[in-house]
Amino acid sequence: MEKEVKRVKMIVAYDGTNYKGWQVQPNGITIEEVLNRHLSSLLGEEITVTGASRTDSGVHSLGNVAIFDTTTRMPADKISFALNQRLPEDIVVQDSCEVPADWHPRYQNSRKTYEYRILNRTFRMPTRRLDTYFYHHSLDVEKMSRAAVYLEGEHDFKSFCAVNAQVKTTVRTIYACSVTKADDIITIRVTGNGFLYNMVRIIAGTLIQVGGGQIEPEQIEQILAARDREAAGPTAPAHGLTMMGIEYMEEKDIDTQGVV
Amino acid sequence: MEKEVKRVKMIVAYDGTNYKGWQVQPNGITIEEVLNRHLSSLLGEEITVTGASRTDSGVHSLGNVAIFDTTTRMPADKISFALNQRLPEDIVVQDSCEVPADWHPRYQNSRKTYEYRILNRTFRMPTRRLDTYFYHHSLDVEKMSRAAVYLEGEHDFKSFCAVNAQVKTTVRTIYACSVTKADDIITIRVTGNGFLYNMVRIIAGTLIQVGGGQIEPEQIEQILAARDREAAGPTAPAHGLTMMGIEYMEEKDIDTQGVV
Repeated sequence: MEKEVKRVKMIVAYDGTNYKGWQVQPNGITIEEVLNRHLSSLLGEEITVTGASRTDSGVHSLGNVAIFDTTTRMPADKISFALNQRLPEDIVVQDSCEVPADWHPRYQNSRKTYEYRILNRTFRMPTRRLDTYFYHHSLDVEKMSRAAVYLEGEHDFKSFCAVNAQVKTTVRTIYACSVTKADDIITIRVTGNGFLYNMVRIIAGTLIQVGGGQIEPEQIEQILAARDREAAGPTAPAHGLTMMGIEYMEEKDIDTQGVV
Repeated sequence: MEKEVKRVKMIVAYDGTNYKGWQVQPNGITIEEVLNRHLSSLLGEEITVTGASRTDSGVHSLGNVAIFDTTTRMPADKISFALNQRLPEDIVVQDSCEVPADWHPRYQNSRKTYEYRILNRTFRMPTRRLDTYFYHHSLDVEKMSRAAVYLEGEHDFKSFCAVNAQVKTTVRTIYACSVTKADDIITIRVTGNGFLYNMVRIIAGTLIQVGGGQIEPEQIEQILAARDREAAGPTAPAHGLTMMGIEYMEEKDIDTQGVV
């Protein structure tokens, strides 16, 4: 008798400090690898997860999404609890549930949200050194906010894409891009239908230059129009970036988008 | 010709995760020890710092205060910058300045503020595992807030003091004790003229029991009156605690206390 296969979806949170990013690679331990190893040992079969967002080395996550197929009889919603007992303390599964066999975290209409955090003060703050990028010069948050608005909407983000990236199209939609400050921490929050390689970090690097006065908010339009990586600011360091979560839209939501 | 001695005051921030607390001790590296070593090598003379708050193993700080005496000709306000070049990334001096030769961080009228942070949600959150205490059961913040008010004022805090502590008096004044919640993090913020050994952690452990319904807010009065460590809740774990800062009052401020 053949065993029944089910597809399980997990929400995965991690502190990326000690990992070489999400995707399995030869020179260092990755999130994907740790999940594969512990799921395989927990379920007694070879498990390979597929992630929605293949975050870079040092990038954190509160809500990355991953799927895998399994023949286990363990209920899907119990897997998160059992797996967390085995995982190191810097990776914690927040939820697990069964999804249809053809559900895929990347080939699906979705809204991803990232936050880039800048610690903007005179001295470094040890307790926030792992999840914020320390920037010593004073930044004008009001200017950064005005610049962020120019990024909203459907644009060709070629200027905000790492030069070596291989993609069919560099057109993406940003639904919202905001810049807020609480105490010494400036948060750039971006929600979009997809992101190019290094896109959020280049947005952050560019908005930092706006905050420092090297770029005027209005210039974002020209930077987008240039379709040239050289036109935008530098790529801000990975450790300031956190993948916040992914919202998946049902077909019906897509149909009614803009109507409701 | 004898060299002139000056006393320097520093504000010290640290992530306490990798240290056995502030005070030098045989079995593990401490904040005090690291400061002594790097200050001695920077200034070319044996330096011994004295701290205001001798925080426990795992406790963090944004604003502990330390002093030391030195014959260096380096201006006191430049020492922080030079020292930070040598310190590990989990200890950062936020300020340094000269103070009178008889100024001492502990024998001085002051207000210390601590925060105890509780991550109150179903699953652990890896990015906040080092500076929050994860508590899975739901807590009633409104009850915790009402209980906190009973702790304000001058009281004998013997019930909130570790049993082995050697002190002249267990009477202390709490100027403010508040409980607030932002997202999944509950923050207990306490300002007082001094704290007994483990006092904030026992307050946190007790307020957690109030939030969970084991203790009613009004019972705090009886717990205080008992003058017995057994009457209060457990000592909450060290890593949820952060020393936020110390405000020193001038003599004139003390004279007018309660008047202005």
